[in-house]
Amino acid sequence: MGARDILADWGVREFRVIDRAAIQEITLGASILATGGGGDPEIGLLWTYKVLDEGKEIVMVDPADIPDEIQVASPACLGAALVLTEKPPASEVINLAMRKLERYLGRPIQATIPIECGGVNSPVAYAAAGELGVPVIDVDGMNRAFPELQMTSWVTHGVHASPTVSVDDRGNVTVIDTGEDDLLAENLARRAAMAYGGISWIATYPMTGRDVKGSSILYSQSIAWAVGKAVMRARREHLDPIEELLKSLLRERGVEGFRAFKGKIVDIRREFGSETTKGFTLGKVIMEGIDEYRGHTAELDFQNEWLNLRVDGEVRCLPPDLIAILDSETGEPIRTDIMKYGYRGTIVLIPAHERMRTERGIELFGPRHFGYELDYVPVEELNG
Amino acid sequence: MGARDILADWGVREFRVIDRAAIQEITLGASILATGGGGDPEIGLLWTYKVLDEGKEIVMVDPADIPDEIQVASPACLGAALVLTEKPPASEVINLAMRKLERYLGRPIQATIPIECGGVNSPVAYAAAGELGVPVIDVDGMNRAFPELQMTSWVTHGVHASPTVSVDDRGNVTVIDTGEDDLLAENLARRAAMAYGGISWIATYPMTGRDVKGSSILYSQSIAWAVGKAVMRARREHLDPIEELLKSLLRERGVEGFRAFKGKIVDIRREFGSETTKGFTLGKVIMEGIDEYRGHTAELDFQNEWLNLRVDGEVRCLPPDLIAILDSETGEPIRTDIMKYGYRGTIVLIPAHERMRTERGIELFGPRHFGYELDYVPVEELNG
Repeated sequence: MGARDILADWGVREFRVIDRAAIQEITLGASILATGGGGDPEIGLLWTYKVLDEGKEIVMVDPADIPDEIQVASPACLGAALVLTEKPPASEVINLAMRKLERYLGRPIQATIPIECGGVNSPVAYAAAGELGVPVIDVDGMNRAFPELQMTSWVTHGVHASPTVSVDDRGNVTVIDTGEDDLLAENLARRAAMAYGGISWIATYPMTGRDVKGSSILYSQSIAWAVGKAVMRARREHLDPIEELLKSLLRERGVEGFRAFKGKIVDIRREFGSETTKGFTLGKVIMEGIDEYRGHTAELDFQNEWLNLRVDGEVRCLPPDLIAILDSETGEPIRTDIMKYGYRGTIVLIPAHERMRTERGIELFGPRHFGYELDYVPVEELNG
Repeated sequence: MGARDILADWGVREFRVIDRAAIQEITLGASILATGGGGDPEIGLLWTYKVLDEGKEIVMVDPADIPDEIQVASPACLGAALVLTEKPPASEVINLAMRKLERYLGRPIQATIPIECGGVNSPVAYAAAGELGVPVIDVDGMNRAFPELQMTSWVTHGVHASPTVSVDDRGNVTVIDTGEDDLLAENLARRAAMAYGGISWIATYPMTGRDVKGSSILYSQSIAWAVGKAVMRARREHLDPIEELLKSLLRERGVEGFRAFKGKIVDIRREFGSETTKGFTLGKVIMEGIDEYRGHTAELDFQNEWLNLRVDGEVRCLPPDLIAILDSETGEPIRTDIMKYGYRGTIVLIPAHERMRTERGIELFGPRHFGYELDYVPVEELNG
């Protein structure tokens, strides 16, 4: 039985077939929305290409079309992106995690849902869907990337990460079942990743179709796809990729993004070594303005993702709103795990999805959660 | 169905009924063999008394009498004994761990096996057996206590800790399945305990009856019982408890123990705070000799258990051989988690069981494993 049979079973006749070009566009868009985190798109892409090259089909379904009672889950990588770059996955690891989750649940997984927009975790959900012969649903749990397992619209809408299965590439398995305690699930999953050597592959957030519709960021894949397409077109047609990106967001999500800065990286302070920093890419970056921003300074903190932007000491963006640093010519995102002194880029700010901006969302992944003594102020107010 | 029905099913007609007096003697003996670790016997005893007071029966069976194909497992506490003293268990936690292990295995657990000789983990295996209505088998995995999950005769004889279920008293569950990688199982189980707040309750070492016979320390419970009885009798009859203990060991195990020192604790250096010390009671103790040892100095390192004894700088006992510091009047063990400046005691050394002294055993829990640049020399040679 393949993904098309499952869709036929559900009475769904419309779906999108994801080919190499599509997954490339989706992954580019997702890595832009990943706000500096989400890992190396090459890793996720190569894996997805391999699945397609083996003749497996990948299809995406509209969340409005899925039955309420189906069982779905999210396949993902959890750990420090920096480690992942040195230790790319074997193709069996996510399959093992998904199979072990099915066994623990006593139910088969009938579709995958990406956990976030990220260079790794977006395509991984497609690759896993292709491997398992199930569809991908056009949703995710963030419409951005975030460093911790519990930082999802799923949790803010009452759906939990447990049970989560965490595996490594040697076939080791950890099943984490903490009921409604998603912070403890994150804590255990992070420790398992560290015990494995820095990186783990998880099958997480098992939920029903009803939960998907009630708690996900709906059409998150379409948004990433539109963003990726816009930037690709800009490259082909020599248009301003930042401009095309902002237009695509307005068209697809109805939200306005902001250009906040243009500059080059003049200082990077990475934090290593302490227990809290293990399992994350952590630190701070200073950018010196160029062109119309000459004489100004931008300062960004990061924990896998960009967290907070200050321009000339003034706060311009706070979590969960999105910060992307993009190459001004290509629109390619500059990532926290690989950025270097001298990199140049334009900082773009994007309002978080409304399902991430609930009171519970601000509590779980707003500024105070990340240690800032600041109330959350929406990015459109900070840049109005 | 109760433990007696299970035994009848196996065609076993001989077994020992464990009452309050028996469990008290076994636990005293086990806490002496626990070499300074193993936790507070009061915690394990109170739990076992409660099970008996509820009218549940606890019976112990000879390992020679169990069928080869039965499924057994070890219920235990894993974490820092110091935390346990502050956070005694709810009675449901071990049951939850055992039930979750049964579900993961897809087979019921038909008997319990204590993991070690310890004030907590010995009686816990009896309490769990009583709760579950299954017998305890007269074996364990160490015939002493040791700080880490993989430090068992089971591992040295090819039986593995996976799958291990780790739970906390709020009902959180972690299933650890690392195949033959017992060091990683320990690493994951230790991290789970830390995530839970320092203490976890585990169901571990699922194995068959055949494995029990081939890899356990056979009659470990009888040895602990004999030691406990001897010391109790010494107290009642005002005999030297150390003398009675050594005689009981010679009788029950056919091994000779040694009096190595008598003194009082004059310095305790505990290590806290670093990641490696979390989840353990770690440090070093200095004792000043009294009576015939006046003018001499003993130095002991500990990691939950006493690891290494040096008298006047000369090594006198190395792991896996046993070091006990016992109150000279009562035979009560002095534990690493509660010892204080000024405590007085006699140091007794006991050869480890031969199933712990294999080449693989010395590799897994000999001096070099604990960071000593020393080859293992049996305690009888060091004190010959």
